[in-house]
Amino acid sequence: MISEFDLIARYFTRAQPGHPQVVLGIGDDCALLNPTPGMVLAISSDMLVEGRHFLPDADPKKLGHKSLAVNLSDLAAMGARPLGFTLALSLPQPDQTWLAGFADGLFALADAHDCALIGGDTTKGPLNICITIFGEIPPGQALRRDAALAGDDIWVSGTLGDARLALAGLRQEVALDPAEQAAAAARLDTPSPRVALGLALRGVAHAAIDISDGLSGDLGHILQRSGCGALVKLDALPPGPVLARQPQALQREFALSGGDDYELCFTAAVTQRAAVLAAAQAAGITVTRIGSIEPAAGLRLVDASGAALDLQFSSFDHFTSP
Amino acid sequence: MISEFDLIARYFTRAQPGHPQVVLGIGDDCALLNPTPGMVLAISSDMLVEGRHFLPDADPKKLGHKSLAVNLSDLAAMGARPLGFTLALSLPQPDQTWLAGFADGLFALADAHDCALIGGDTTKGPLNICITIFGEIPPGQALRRDAALAGDDIWVSGTLGDARLALAGLRQEVALDPAEQAAAAARLDTPSPRVALGLALRGVAHAAIDISDGLSGDLGHILQRSGCGALVKLDALPPGPVLARQPQALQREFALSGGDDYELCFTAAVTQRAAVLAAAQAAGITVTRIGSIEPAAGLRLVDASGAALDLQFSSFDHFTSP
Repeated sequence: MISEFDLIARYFTRAQPGHPQVVLGIGDDCALLNPTPGMVLAISSDMLVEGRHFLPDADPKKLGHKSLAVNLSDLAAMGARPLGFTLALSLPQPDQTWLAGFADGLFALADAHDCALIGGDTTKGPLNICITIFGEIPPGQALRRDAALAGDDIWVSGTLGDARLALAGLRQEVALDPAEQAAAAARLDTPSPRVALGLALRGVAHAAIDISDGLSGDLGHILQRSGCGALVKLDALPPGPVLARQPQALQREFALSGGDDYELCFTAAVTQRAAVLAAAQAAGITVTRIGSIEPAAGLRLVDASGAALDLQFSSFDHFTSP
Repeated sequence: MISEFDLIARYFTRAQPGHPQVVLGIGDDCALLNPTPGMVLAISSDMLVEGRHFLPDADPKKLGHKSLAVNLSDLAAMGARPLGFTLALSLPQPDQTWLAGFADGLFALADAHDCALIGGDTTKGPLNICITIFGEIPPGQALRRDAALAGDDIWVSGTLGDARLALAGLRQEVALDPAEQAAAAARLDTPSPRVALGLALRGVAHAAIDISDGLSGDLGHILQRSGCGALVKLDALPPGPVLARQPQALQREFALSGGDDYELCFTAAVTQRAAVLAAAQAAGITVTRIGSIEPAAGLRLVDASGAALDLQFSSFDHFTSP
């Protein structure tokens, strides 16, 4: 059986991609990171558990991608530039086919974002993937959740709900043909973190968050921390292309409360509309204006005619959700 | 049932202990850390799994202590000053008695080392605790594994083997009376990371590592990365006070290859002996000279008379060890 040290050497040790900020990578008690002078470090940890975040038969390559993508998405939501990450991995047994696939997916996305694996841990146990990621950002330019202002436009990037629809298809709650299932599953399994958009929104947007648990809940975090409320035009939400073929009620539900899309939800002053569109253009992603921040607490939903809608969709919670 | 967000608010959100380096703590997509200008960041991740690193009935308070202690020990081995950490926690269910105990043990040690919880993740799943820790260190002063030089003395801090003896007692491989078991178990369950010693050894020691998997294996990492060998006087190893009452063969085995003591093993020039002793005195911990670094590869063991010993004890490996 392959040893812990051989496993690290074979699958997770590579030539550093050359970030001058990485002073020392894998192989010592600690990694050493030297952020660019004057920059602030942005740090996020996410833990993915088998049976909770992915199915036991998940493709290891896609899983490697997704494990890093959810962390890169947190940097994107802060407007931080990726530097590096640590990987802690608990495995039932060191299956080399699985490890090779996982490393492939992980490093392909890491290289695409110039983000170096700088350290970590491996142990035997139920499959669990914990990545902590590091990025940098100029002081005062982070897109914080507490920075929304009354009057701000609310925007989302890309499209919403196809990841949730893929889950519904897998659970046979919704009938999808194989092409639809595959297209929706790509959003669920290999999300694209909006790192370029987050960088382009520095100095343009006020608050931002990534949509991991569903727009209503994630926007709710901005509202709570910023001490304000919002009016959202439900029919302005951009449904994913597969979801767009479903009945309106399902489109509304999944776009509003489906998780796992990893798009950005952000707010910006009305005077910044042209700048937001230019940032999106530069980042190669569409953005859609879906409502506005209001002084009064609470999330108010209206339809295309402006009539109030009373919809209750719960956002995902790891302990209270089924 | 308590929600994920209430759980974080109730057990893991507190007033920041006031590190000016922590710009933004728990509650956003990322934490923001601003290292002291000119300092390098030291980063380490450790993952603890139920049934592997601790027993299912482990005292949650001790487990909170140990989870952070093993990470602080990595900072100690690098000579880094603790700043903060992230905690990713997978729990089968949010047992509030367990959480309160775990948080107690965790924060007591965190406060003792002025190390702030700055972010993390909670999820449902088999019990798994992953901490990533951050410290800082002046450029060029890290105690790296690759810095041992031929002729260096080899030192260890404190005493060795009581943690391993506690495990042997639990497994009934060795008969210990209740007082002995309790004394040894304190080393296993609530190790003291040698942070003050690591800091005092900056500019004094060459290479360092913390002893988590056993002295022979951990010293072996220094030898491998420094491209050298070592002569170790087996009977110079300082046994733990409980182990010291056991037969010589067991003392030798557990001091040489027992893990979980979290002492430091380090090398320093012969000319630095007085400085090493002064550093240890300042840090309030004993240190013992156990051998020397030699140009030829390999670890050579000798007894008190200088006669070579041919002992093979394997160091712990998560995938090849039983």
